[in-house]
Amino acid sequence: MKAEILTIGDEILIGQVTNTNAVWIAQQLNLIGIKVVHMATVSDDANEILKGLENAAKSADMVLITGGLGPTKDDITKKTFAQFFNAELVLDEAILVDVSSFFIKRGREVSQLNKDQALIPKGCRVLRNKSGTAPGMWMQKNNVHFISLPGVPYEMKGIMTDEVLPAIKAEFKLPHIYHKTVLTQGIGESVIAELIEKWEDGLAAKNIKLAYLPQPGLVRLRLSTSGDDEKKIKEDVDDEIEKLIPLIQDYVFGFENYGEEMPTIEKVTSDLLKERKQTLSIAESCTGGYLSSLFTAIAGSSEVFKGGIVPYSNEAKHELLNVDNAIFEKYGAVSKECVIDLAENVRKKFNSDFSISISGVAGPSGGTPDKPVGFVWIAVSSKEKTLAKSFQFGDHRQRNIVMTANAAVSFLRKFVLKN
Amino acid sequence: MKAEILTIGDEILIGQVTNTNAVWIAQQLNLIGIKVVHMATVSDDANEILKGLENAAKSADMVLITGGLGPTKDDITKKTFAQFFNAELVLDEAILVDVSSFFIKRGREVSQLNKDQALIPKGCRVLRNKSGTAPGMWMQKNNVHFISLPGVPYEMKGIMTDEVLPAIKAEFKLPHIYHKTVLTQGIGESVIAELIEKWEDGLAAKNIKLAYLPQPGLVRLRLSTSGDDEKKIKEDVDDEIEKLIPLIQDYVFGFENYGEEMPTIEKVTSDLLKERKQTLSIAESCTGGYLSSLFTAIAGSSEVFKGGIVPYSNEAKHELLNVDNAIFEKYGAVSKECVIDLAENVRKKFNSDFSISISGVAGPSGGTPDKPVGFVWIAVSSKEKTLAKSFQFGDHRQRNIVMTANAAVSFLRKFVLKN
Repeated sequence: MKAEILTIGDEILIGQVTNTNAVWIAQQLNLIGIKVVHMATVSDDANEILKGLENAAKSADMVLITGGLGPTKDDITKKTFAQFFNAELVLDEAILVDVSSFFIKRGREVSQLNKDQALIPKGCRVLRNKSGTAPGMWMQKNNVHFISLPGVPYEMKGIMTDEVLPAIKAEFKLPHIYHKTVLTQGIGESVIAELIEKWEDGLAAKNIKLAYLPQPGLVRLRLSTSGDDEKKIKEDVDDEIEKLIPLIQDYVFGFENYGEEMPTIEKVTSDLLKERKQTLSIAESCTGGYLSSLFTAIAGSSEVFKGGIVPYSNEAKHELLNVDNAIFEKYGAVSKECVIDLAENVRKKFNSDFSISISGVAGPSGGTPDKPVGFVWIAVSSKEKTLAKSFQFGDHRQRNIVMTANAAVSFLRKFVLKN
Repeated sequence: MKAEILTIGDEILIGQVTNTNAVWIAQQLNLIGIKVVHMATVSDDANEILKGLENAAKSADMVLITGGLGPTKDDITKKTFAQFFNAELVLDEAILVDVSSFFIKRGREVSQLNKDQALIPKGCRVLRNKSGTAPGMWMQKNNVHFISLPGVPYEMKGIMTDEVLPAIKAEFKLPHIYHKTVLTQGIGESVIAELIEKWEDGLAAKNIKLAYLPQPGLVRLRLSTSGDDEKKIKEDVDDEIEKLIPLIQDYVFGFENYGEEMPTIEKVTSDLLKERKQTLSIAESCTGGYLSSLFTAIAGSSEVFKGGIVPYSNEAKHELLNVDNAIFEKYGAVSKECVIDLAENVRKKFNSDFSISISGVAGPSGGTPDKPVGFVWIAVSSKEKTLAKSFQFGDHRQRNIVMTANAAVSFLRKFVLKN
């Protein structure tokens, strides 16, 4: 079964909003064996929506539509959707109860705009929305399924999870798609390509596709295949990964099983610490709380993460983390001496097994010939020892923050593994 | 002039990567008066790419293509692009020099794969890539312009900024598009819609479109129009905004001028403090560094942000920020008493004019009947006084973190304005 994801919304076309719905829907469809063959985004305009629906039906058996179902005047998807199927809009009483109780629960009045959300095209299969007021709608035309969902991400996700995905799984017989991704840190994609060239040449014969997915500081290698025999396609891919690993051993930090939560390098490292019942604290200057926020974004992180300090000035480094003022004068705050002090003192302060400290020049200002923008010192520390390393990243503040955090976590992970 | 943005990449279709390139390109085109009428994403497959190019040419005068230009075998855009124009691939010596120096500068060898990046379709206008090795390519067919760029975001952005946008501006006569967005916090979209209904009804006559853009905790209202008379369309929109403001005064925190950096609520607040030469410190528990990272993501934030502490455990709250242990026993860490102590003590510790403190239950675990997941206390403090408020957000950890941070910044902003 082939699907198209059709996004409706001027906010996407003018670049005001990133289309995160499409990526999430694609993941969910893939996971149950539906191949997304095309994505398109059209304007909040009846003709464009109709053209989009017609085009989608040419190559897809199922069209997932998001956007334009809100209560306000700029939302015209429902009217146009009904027009596409030549269906009139009728009041659905169950939905009216849903919509009303949504507002009553929150102590608010139900306006006519809100009540109108219970209007649906006649003959449509209604998909209940537990997190909002716009119901989803499922219609069929010439054997193509059209499923229209709200554009608000958590409402769309709720309806997909509660209604659409279980129905598709129950009602269609689907093939299997299998992806597995090898996660690497600290090596560029063309270097990997050379290291694995021979291995890569053998993949076509097994109907396995390889993709290189570079991110700041990381490269992901995704192997993909599909077929009817779930066990065999999985074995084929896993066999190839077993041959691949020895070629790039030093750089691999984990795997991404498609559909499971993507193991970020901080998740892998946090799990490693949790397993060993060890804890972490962080003193981060130029990353300004970003590194701590990566660890605390993980559910249950309080078992591993004891706390952090963002000593954004020299005074704070001195007063909160006892960095000797002589260090600032002699070496500067972006120095090996400073990050070693920060790492050791933050570890003691939070009484954690490990710590990370960071001091660098995120940019755009603050660079010097000696320590240009992008120059960073990172230290990791345990009760037994403290190591420090310097890195030179690029010119972009936000990118420098992300790459610094990635490098710091990778540094810690290798340090923990050796301890 | 109408444009299509065509994205090439299986990683998008299987939902492994979010298409952030399309949103950025759309913004840039819009800004110079090019309307993006359609976006599409196709697979890394020669037939699909060819079909995508043909389809795009039907409705657009200019097609911006990203993806598939890397050095590795999964990247087939260049070959297919050449095929579409019936052009052979030839070596471009200037590009070969660029590619070689890219690797030599980094002390790495230049492989054959890298050298092949200097191959380009004969007759193509070459777009130099200063941040990577894959050049961009600009070709024309039946009066439609096709511009192919690498998929790596900062490489694509570099070529657009350095080469493509200046060339378009110089070579084409373009109309004006004007967007302005009103930013609100603390009110839902259907409530706004009722408050501004009459005003909204008058927009059509002026050819102004209104869009409601909800985000966690915020709603943006975008007014858009286009025309040849730059001054007039701007005045029309600005006049309407002047009429709109009094209707929703209490909720408006700023404006987004299209194409300028979007003023997040933390940027607006940080600018306010900078103007008043006042400073901020943060003690955040359940947001775990995220709130600090919002402020430190702003270039030059060290003038405003003095530092932060993430006291993730009760011990840390006690030892680093002197919260009395009796408070944990009597009221718990998620309490008015605790956040007041945190806010006052972090302000003193960093000697800042203002401070924010946060303690809550981000979830998914840790909720109790009294203090369920999503329950948060926030305090703001100055030398004169300290205020605390509680909030009830939802069930999702990441969403709770974002909404808490938004609410905290909004709380601080109003507090600063009254001080």
